Amino acid sequence: MKLVFLGTGGSWPSKERNVTSIALQHNRDVILMDCGEGTQRQLMKSSVSFMQIEKILITHLHGDHFLGLPGLVQSMALNNRERPLEILCPIGTKDILNLFLSVGYFTRDFDVNIREVSDGECIDFAGYSIKAISADHVVPTLAYRFEEAPRKGLFDLDKAKQLGIPPGRLYSKLQNGETIEYKGKKITPEMVIGPKRKGRSIVYSGDTRPCESVLELAKECDILIHEGMVDDNLRDKANEYGHSTITQAAEIAKKANVGRLFIVHISPRYTLEDTPILEEKAKKIFPNTTLAIDLMEYEVKLRE
Amino acid sequence: MKLVFLGTGGSWPSKERNVTSIALQHNRDVILMDCGEGTQRQLMKSSVSFMQIEKILITHLHGDHFLGLPGLVQSMALNNRERPLEILCPIGTKDILNLFLSVGYFTRDFDVNIREVSDGECIDFAGYSIKAISADHVVPTLAYRFEEAPRKGLFDLDKAKQLGIPPGRLYSKLQNGETIEYKGKKITPEMVIGPKRKGRSIVYSGDTRPCESVLELAKECDILIHEGMVDDNLRDKANEYGHSTITQAAEIAKKANVGRLFIVHISPRYTLEDTPILEEKAKKIFPNTTLAIDLMEYEVKLRE
Repeated sequence: MKLVFLGTGGSWPSKERNVTSIALQHNRDVILMDCGEGTQRQLMKSSVSFMQIEKILITHLHGDHFLGLPGLVQSMALNNRERPLEILCPIGTKDILNLFLSVGYFTRDFDVNIREVSDGECIDFAGYSIKAISADHVVPTLAYRFEEAPRKGLFDLDKAKQLGIPPGRLYSKLQNGETIEYKGKKITPEMVIGPKRKGRSIVYSGDTRPCESVLELAKECDILIHEGMVDDNLRDKANEYGHSTITQAAEIAKKANVGRLFIVHISPRYTLEDTPILEEKAKKIFPNTTLAIDLMEYEVKLRE
Repeated sequence: MKLVFLGTGGSWPSKERNVTSIALQHNRDVILMDCGEGTQRQLMKSSVSFMQIEKILITHLHGDHFLGLPGLVQSMALNNRERPLEILCPIGTKDILNLFLSVGYFTRDFDVNIREVSDGECIDFAGYSIKAISADHVVPTLAYRFEEAPRKGLFDLDKAKQLGIPPGRLYSKLQNGETIEYKGKKITPEMVIGPKRKGRSIVYSGDTRPCESVLELAKECDILIHEGMVDDNLRDKANEYGHSTITQAAEIAKKANVGRLFIVHISPRYTLEDTPILEEKAKKIFPNTTLAIDLMEYEVKLRE
């Protein structure tokens, strides 16, 4: 499972940062979080195939978060995609997106299923769930939590030995959840397999002022991707326009006790050279912080 | 006057080539020819300011030629543009573009005037004209000819001396088109100023099969920018889908007796390494050919 930061800039693109999009590769599927203009080209520069995208989560209808949708969908069509694509989006935006995706001449032989998600809704998919809550921006905006399904517990070799079970086929059966009989004794999987292990979790804030709902959604997650548009000297203006500063993002990460924070949606006023300086400021509040740069990849390790 | 090739790829972007857009800087104005997705970012990487764009010429509504419009217009709005923007487009596409430019949340304090142009129409603007003709593609598509207004004739110093006019103020008057009287003799500007000199001309084909109408439009122009999607081994397929091969573009340039040919809309199947090989093939037919690459600039010199 890996994260690929396709676009880490905010509002409009700069030479160095494209507008927002983050890919989450989970097994063979890719979940795209937002899709600003130029995302398809960023995908082509990355290790992720645009044809593997399974779902796109749209946080809100500001251009820097969704204008890349029609180009991406049309390129999928030109490359003969057949399997459906699912787009999750805020309530009230489905018809607009359907219309937006229909403009111009092209043929498309796969379905694009657009699904509006309400505040607090949690949807189960094979192997993971996605929960959405309302963030605090100037237009209706969702934040999303990706939660991997719990994994099986660990097989306790010591316990198996204590019970006298010989290694081999019977271990496999127990691992697959079967109850076995050995020397007249019934042995259930629970006797040798530990509790289920929590899956990995990623929270993406979308655009937002610092807010309780995102803080709540992010609690104890492995990775929080939070917007942090500007340095703290511009806090009032950022908050007025529905955004967070870099240090406010770090404060949310700290309060939510997340594993790692990636800050995205960085204003085009900053160059790449400013990145380490800004990152240092955030790290003073939450040390495990990275100011993401375009095409950065991060392997999300399994929890033990 | 210069040309900036912002995107020289066709159909979908590759790592090396963005989809179609070419900027023509004429004095302080910029005329953009097509605006594929990601054009605004290409502009930010170029020497041309996206805020200086005066007009956008759209050839047709295939995604790789117009999906960059809403992002560009919204970035202009975010950067407080006030002066109107004019978009020229084929008949029947105005309402679609107006709708397309209205999707999502944003405020815009300048007018976007969309004007449909019919086959053969020529529009005069201050300092230049733009003529459109129908190209031969699979959907309604225009090709455009930019024609600079003729410049004043050259002042003939020898003639002025022969007429005995002393250099200075009287020369200026004649150059400004005034008739003067010198030693009782009436001297008209025509007596010392040569014929008007032809302005520079640029023709852009849009997507097209090789066709008579583009050939006619391109006659004797300084610069022809013609699509040439693939090598000649794919001629039948290219023509079937409404495109030209690289050598077909060169043949048009030769027949039209243009000054220089730039080939654009190069298929993503080719890498930059293929460029010189393809260019060589075109040069065998029309030596003054360049296969454009992204962000290439070309100064369009004055004719003498």
